[in-house]
Amino acid sequence: MNWNVYLSGEIHTDWRQQIIDGAAALNLPIVFASAVTNHEASDAAGDLLGSESNNFWRDHKSSKINAIRTKTHIQKCDIAIVRFGEKFKQWNAAFDAGQCAALGKPYITLHDDDIIHPLKEVDAAAMAWATTPSQVVEMLAYVTDAK
Amino acid sequence: MNWNVYLSGEIHTDWRQQIIDGAAALNLPIVFASAVTNHEASDAAGDLLGSESNNFWRDHKSSKINAIRTKTHIQKCDIAIVRFGEKFKQWNAAFDAGQCAALGKPYITLHDDDIIHPLKEVDAAAMAWATTPSQVVEMLAYVTDAK
Amino acid sequence: MNWNVYLSGEIHTDWRQQIIDGAAALNLPIVFASAVTNHEASDAAGDLLGSESNNFWRDHKSSKINAIRTKTHIQKCDIAIVRFGEKFKQWNAAFDAGQCAALGKPYITLHDDDIIHPLKEVDAAAMAWATTPSQVVEMLAYVTDAK
Amino acid sequence: MNWNVYLSGEIHTDWRQQIIDGAAALNLPIVFASAVTNHEASDAAGDLLGSESNNFWRDHKSSKINAIRTKTHIQKCDIAIVRFGEKFKQWNAAFDAGQCAALGKPYITLHDDDIIHPLKEVDAAAMAWATTPSQVVEMLAYVTDAK
Amino acid sequence: MNWNVYLSGEIHTDWRQQIIDGAAALNLPIVFASAVTNHEASDAAGDLLGSESNNFWRDHKSSKINAIRTKTHIQKCDIAIVRFGEKFKQWNAAFDAGQCAALGKPYITLHDDDIIHPLKEVDAAAMAWATTPSQVVEMLAYVTDAK
Amino acid sequence: MNWNVYLSGEIHTDWRQQIIDGAAALNLPIVFASAVTNHEASDAAGDLLGSESNNFWRDHKSSKINAIRTKTHIQKCDIAIVRFGEKFKQWNAAFDAGQCAALGKPYITLHDDDIIHPLKEVDAAAMAWATTPSQVVEMLAYVTDAK
Amino acid sequence: MNWNVYLSGEIHTDWRQQIIDGAAALNLPIVFASAVTNHEASDAAGDLLGSESNNFWRDHKSSKINAIRTKTHIQKCDIAIVRFGEKFKQWNAAFDAGQCAALGKPYITLHDDDIIHPLKEVDAAAMAWATTPSQVVEMLAYVTDAK
Amino acid sequence: MNWNVYLSGEIHTDWRQQIIDGAAALNLPIVFASAVTNHEASDAAGDLLGSESNNFWRDHKSSKINAIRTKTHIQKCDIAIVRFGEKFKQWNAAFDAGQCAALGKPYITLHDDDIIHPLKEVDAAAMAWATTPSQVVEMLAYVTDAK
Repeated sequence: MNWNVYLSGEIHTDWRQQIIDGAAALNLPIVFASAVTNHEASDAAGDLLGSESNNFWRDHKSSKINAIRTKTHIQKCDIAIVRFGEKFKQWNAAFDAGQCAALGKPYITLHDDDIIHPLKEVDAAAMAWATTPSQVVEMLAYVTDAK
Repeated sequence: MNWNVYLSGEIHTDWRQQIIDGAAALNLPIVFASAVTNHEASDAAGDLLGSESNNFWRDHKSSKINAIRTKTHIQKCDIAIVRFGEKFKQWNAAFDAGQCAALGKPYITLHDDDIIHPLKEVDAAAMAWATTPSQVVEMLAYVTDAK
Repeated sequence: MNWNVYLSGEIHTDWRQQIIDGAAALNLPIVFASAVTNHEASDAAGDLLGSESNNFWRDHKSSKINAIRTKTHIQKCDIAIVRFGEKFKQWNAAFDAGQCAALGKPYITLHDDDIIHPLKEVDAAAMAWATTPSQVVEMLAYVTDAK
Repeated sequence: MNWNVYLSGEIHTDWRQQIIDGAAALNLPIVFASAVTNHEASDAAGDLLGSESNNFWRDHKSSKINAIRTKTHIQKCDIAIVRFGEKFKQWNAAFDAGQCAALGKPYITLHDDDIIHPLKEVDAAAMAWATTPSQVVEMLAYVTDAK
Repeated sequence: MNWNVYLSGEIHTDWRQQIIDGAAALNLPIVFASAVTNHEASDAAGDLLGSESNNFWRDHKSSKINAIRTKTHIQKCDIAIVRFGEKFKQWNAAFDAGQCAALGKPYITLHDDDIIHPLKEVDAAAMAWATTPSQVVEMLAYVTDAK
Repeated sequence: MNWNVYLSGEIHTDWRQQIIDGAAALNLPIVFASAVTNHEASDAAGDLLGSESNNFWRDHKSSKINAIRTKTHIQKCDIAIVRFGEKFKQWNAAFDAGQCAALGKPYITLHDDDIIHPLKEVDAAAMAWATTPSQVVEMLAYVTDAK
Repeated sequence: MNWNVYLSGEIHTDWRQQIIDGAAALNLPIVFASAVTNHEASDAAGDLLGSESNNFWRDHKSSKINAIRTKTHIQKCDIAIVRFGEKFKQWNAAFDAGQCAALGKPYITLHDDDIIHPLKEVDAAAMAWATTPSQVVEMLAYVTDAK
Repeated sequence: MNWNVYLSGEIHTDWRQQIIDGAAALNLPIVFASAVTNHEASDAAGDLLGSESNNFWRDHKSSKINAIRTKTHIQKCDIAIVRFGEKFKQWNAAFDAGQCAALGKPYITLHDDDIIHPLKEVDAAAMAWATTPSQVVEMLAYVTDAK
């Protein structure tokens, strides 16, 4: 079988590419999906429907269009990787993890050890906690390809 | 019918009590539930099972015991109120909101307007965004008690 | 058992009261629920959260608050009665019927015979089509109380 | 992945073809589905099973055969586009939207701004409201094909 | 807890009453439900909606009204007892058993040993096969009341 | 899309082949499935696991092995055709129909008009009632292939 | 709310009573349920339906009647406690735990530390591992009654 | 259709290979899946995430990574074969069977007759009990390939 892996969270470092490249190098049977990771394009997703004077509604329209994509990928994924980086609130990553938990989708968190405590609820429902993309690749190789 | 309302998120201000008192004053048909809001007790929930030298596992044990309670209340609730305050990461609040979204539980967010942008995904799946506990009470009165 | 019956649709005639009175006269084991049927209050449900210059967003906010109530009642009901009257678009009634159909909730339509053709899809998924409130009461009596 | 997009609603203008052509021009990974849009064929779907003297039953038989198709496509779709035009009751479009809402299928409404108010409940559960087929195509391109 | 037990099938002997009396004699914590067992009333359930010249439609209308009741009781039951007697086709009993099987509702069949072979598929998904009402009562007592 | 159509019920006439041939002649996008229709092989499905002195257990073992196949096909089908012939009890056909009803699978019954009354509950939950295989083919062509 | 707690597994020591007594002493809002714990009665549950010469079928009949009770209690429970003792295979306890895991029911394991390794899969899906009944009581008090 | 068959349980004999070879010899339309059957690799699955001084946590980490694989395969399988051998506790096999039972996945047990009694609950929810891999192959051939 091919495994659908959803890559959720931080968009300011190249962790997605590292995992995708690592999986490709091992020829793993994985199809990756992700939210739109171009920050400006993502924020502007709803602008085509008309401008808004109120920022709340601009965010609202864009976020719902983005949610068509993210919700669908989460529902179709077999595994999610949820990355928390150093900056920003990243509530969307925790929100995705909550969806995974409620849907019974196994997910792996990827974050440094200095944010263990604030992420304890998210980690408690995760199947693993990794600190590097290469650990994630190693786990994906084991789960999808070991005999 | 009685409505089950789950109060999720920030534990450092009295917003829960304001909502509970407001609903009581109006005699609304609501049963409120919440996580354990004593921060120290919550962090120590797993200590009775033995001490851990590694903080990750201490947090892990406690968070899972807390999750027995929170997950059950979320699954049984009719409405959730998810509060984001000024301090801390509050990933657990976004995680609860994600669970609500995936389970189809209507939820209302409660936060100031300076965090609209980082909460846009959480707000996009919410049924309403309030900035004060009294607005929440007013909505609960309308939803549960208007003719 | 008590039966939960949700009364959906037209709000400009007293069909709800006729059904409720008819059921009460027969002492049927039924608890009725409904959307807020005060048209002005319903349209203004979201105004407490701040005014909107754009009517779309005013409607949006109010409709979502109303949906907390209607969606919950639909999910908890055992039977829905969906009424289509002579005036207005009444897309919300058809929308409720669609939700019932997808959730497997048995529903009865209540409408005159001059709108059979445009309601054919809605009627096709219904358990019965009635033309008067007293027919609805008679069916409810049979379903909930016959031996 | 290929995305399944269901086109629901009005059958008297060429909005479906505009969306299909627009998606084809961009080579989007989308498979479109629809109800039978030949009005006469749709109304006569059940005639092969014998004629009916009562119009209610003729409509009933045809609508159920049509529902085999529409219900299946709705359940299998990833996104639905629900179009409300200028004429007719179009309760079937609102009925489809209600099914989508209950099944958690993201849907986009397509209608002019003069029917915002009667469609407020349908729009409140939608992920976006568009006024032109080209806006729909642009959103589909973003959701299914952006990086 | 109280157990909901649904009594499905044959209506020409007093097996229901024997089970209800047997459970009452043992003071078992059981609430029984059943289809309307008055054959004539059941066949005429839809007549209030207008007469039909075609018997198929008369049966259709009545059966759907009856299904509001039977489907609801099946969905709410904890255990079903499905009785096959000596006469008639009794396809409705097998139909109820099929619903129970698909919903994961445990059911017990009650029939003589001369129809074991034609009932083999129905019995294969049952939790037990009984030949007398008193055996059913004995099982209900064990399941709901033993320590 | 390819449609999965499950052919349930009577095994003593060639109705299955007529439908399969009719669909093939029209090149319909349908994959058909069925129970094992060799009566003797079906009854003996469990014999490989050892002989049974008691016919109930021989039937039980065989029926459960057959159910692995039939239950899987019913769960995966998009449409079921349920055929009731002139002979035998055919409770398995009604049992399959009950499963379809509970799973929300649209099904079409195929039977003569002299058994309308005993099949009224089964027909009430069906999407159509046909009397000939060619009617079934015509409906399948419309549902899966009309524009 | 009252919490339903299911006590699964070993029946040769008084761990159930210790937990029930401990919860009663603290006046916890818990309703306990359990399989029939009288070993001989449990093995003989199906004997009333006739004797079997083959032990497999005797066990089969009894186990299915017991499963009516256990499966129902597992589906209705909010929390399960799964106890593994020193003796016997106790596959039924692991089987119950598997059901809980698949249904998303939070469960706590109760066993000594010398069987950590063979129980690693069962413990991995548990919310906590306890070694004494008093630890279980303490957790239940926290989950159901802390503020 | 291709059938997904999950092979669960004992890893110390070649029963998996016998079934896979037998199915290949018959050219059956089956895709087999399994947990990682290399015992040492399985126990060490989590070591890449860092060493643990406490064996409970080493087992915990490894088991959760293994569960990403096993839970996914169980959820996607059409049939599971659950093997109980002569040695070890094999609680993981019973745990897998419990998951299958709760998910409605048909499963076949494979074990000798000297452990009928302790496996009675697991066997009671199974579709068949086999004692040799060749019997399993024969059943798979019948279920997936008979006419």
